[in-house]
Amino acid sequence: MHEHFGAKSSTKNFSSTDGELRDHLLLIKVGGKIVEEPESLKLLLVEFSKIPGHKVLVHGGGRSATTLAAQLGIESKMVNGRRVTDEEMLKVVTMVYGGLVNKKIVAGLQALDVNALGLTGADLNYMRSEKRPVAKVDYGFVGDVKEVDADILSDLISKGVVPVLAPLTHDKKGNLLNTNADTIAGEAAKALAKYFDVTLMYCFEKKGVLANENDDDSVIAKINPATFEKLVAEGIISGGMIPKLENAFDALKSGVKRVVITRADDISSVKGTTIVLE
Amino acid sequence: MHEHFGAKSSTKNFSSTDGELRDHLLLIKVGGKIVEEPESLKLLLVEFSKIPGHKVLVHGGGRSATTLAAQLGIESKMVNGRRVTDEEMLKVVTMVYGGLVNKKIVAGLQALDVNALGLTGADLNYMRSEKRPVAKVDYGFVGDVKEVDADILSDLISKGVVPVLAPLTHDKKGNLLNTNADTIAGEAAKALAKYFDVTLMYCFEKKGVLANENDDDSVIAKINPATFEKLVAEGIISGGMIPKLENAFDALKSGVKRVVITRADDISSVKGTTIVLE
Repeated sequence: MHEHFGAKSSTKNFSSTDGELRDHLLLIKVGGKIVEEPESLKLLLVEFSKIPGHKVLVHGGGRSATTLAAQLGIESKMVNGRRVTDEEMLKVVTMVYGGLVNKKIVAGLQALDVNALGLTGADLNYMRSEKRPVAKVDYGFVGDVKEVDADILSDLISKGVVPVLAPLTHDKKGNLLNTNADTIAGEAAKALAKYFDVTLMYCFEKKGVLANENDDDSVIAKINPATFEKLVAEGIISGGMIPKLENAFDALKSGVKRVVITRADDISSVKGTTIVLE
Repeated sequence: MHEHFGAKSSTKNFSSTDGELRDHLLLIKVGGKIVEEPESLKLLLVEFSKIPGHKVLVHGGGRSATTLAAQLGIESKMVNGRRVTDEEMLKVVTMVYGGLVNKKIVAGLQALDVNALGLTGADLNYMRSEKRPVAKVDYGFVGDVKEVDADILSDLISKGVVPVLAPLTHDKKGNLLNTNADTIAGEAAKALAKYFDVTLMYCFEKKGVLANENDDDSVIAKINPATFEKLVAEGIISGGMIPKLENAFDALKSGVKRVVITRADDISSVKGTTIVLE
């Protein structure tokens, strides 16, 4: 299956909701590991640059943040896989996500003639969040997304600009907040679905959702809510993949056309697992 | 003299070159010291937010870069007041200028309802430079500006966006380069002069160019090329102020309407020294 996004993006699609002609937009989230290693970053950017049509890249950067923090004698604390962000750690992630990783990607894409623009949620006030209330865990300066304004963003995208989104938001009170890159991707995709037919692609280390975790080629091509329930009941989908897919269904219910889970070197064609509502 | 820029920015001015109606744009460069201390930064951002009309902020960040470098055990080397930027120092300035300082300003301005957008030269490919050739001094990853594309920038400014420019450019080959904030301000002002009547304002610690260096109130209100020559001959203007003013005349010759040298807390009114061609 090698359906290229180019075919989609070069033609207007009828929106199911209002009958308007809409452009396709591919929003790709890549994890820190891929963008933090020079070789895999180079490969990713070349593949990404080849994708025709409107596109957005969302990146992580956790490993570099942990490395810099360690060099500065700051301990990285993780709870349930999420980073606890105190004041010193907020400075670290602002430097690493907003500066080092984001700008390296932007400069790398510009070298490939992709007109990239690096953004945090504070830039253009495109993603506002609120500091997570302290419950069992005090995550510190971590933001839960409250409002996404994709007006200027969609205008820039229509003009050929490719936003590169760092995992940082702001509270519109002057504070930057650390926000998970998967969440940034999902929220941006939902907001941009107002203007585009959005495909949201999550890249991870496997080729897709596997029917057999020991067989990397056992990719399930398509999952809808009915097959999802069946696969969970059968124990084929379990653990961290369950919330990932629940988020995917949430995005689809909010107007995103489809969600794809795939491997980073497969981004230029629709391989992997496609999640749909029907 | 309390002429407010608002009067200019709320009315269209006739361009001397093409007779078109043009908006006013105020481009302010503030040094690192002002943006790196929380109290002076807060004051600056409040003053800046009050200025009506189109505006751009250019910032430094050298002190924070030196601090972070020291914490990481990297020595800061300066030659003729310019930072030598090796590979490790380039990472530091990318993190500090592009991340920490830039995003703190952007978030601070958003809190004041200024729709800020933080940019390096790589973002939107707005400022391309070339690595400075090694002559007597090898400055390392330092970029001399070669090309400024202010098309998208001017479009964003016209829509109410306020660019916040970090002192970083790129070579369009994938490398970020360290570029002096004064230079960024001058080059951006010249490029934006194609679209706006630009006032370029350099903020420093004095109220303006002083007739008597021991009297902070002896500000020279206006300097043109004739008075400049006279003041240099008389020894009133000397040292580092000479290249600063030469750069100002260069900007004016390239279409910038006027250059103002003033103190950071005087940015909302035209005090200080105004440099003009006539």
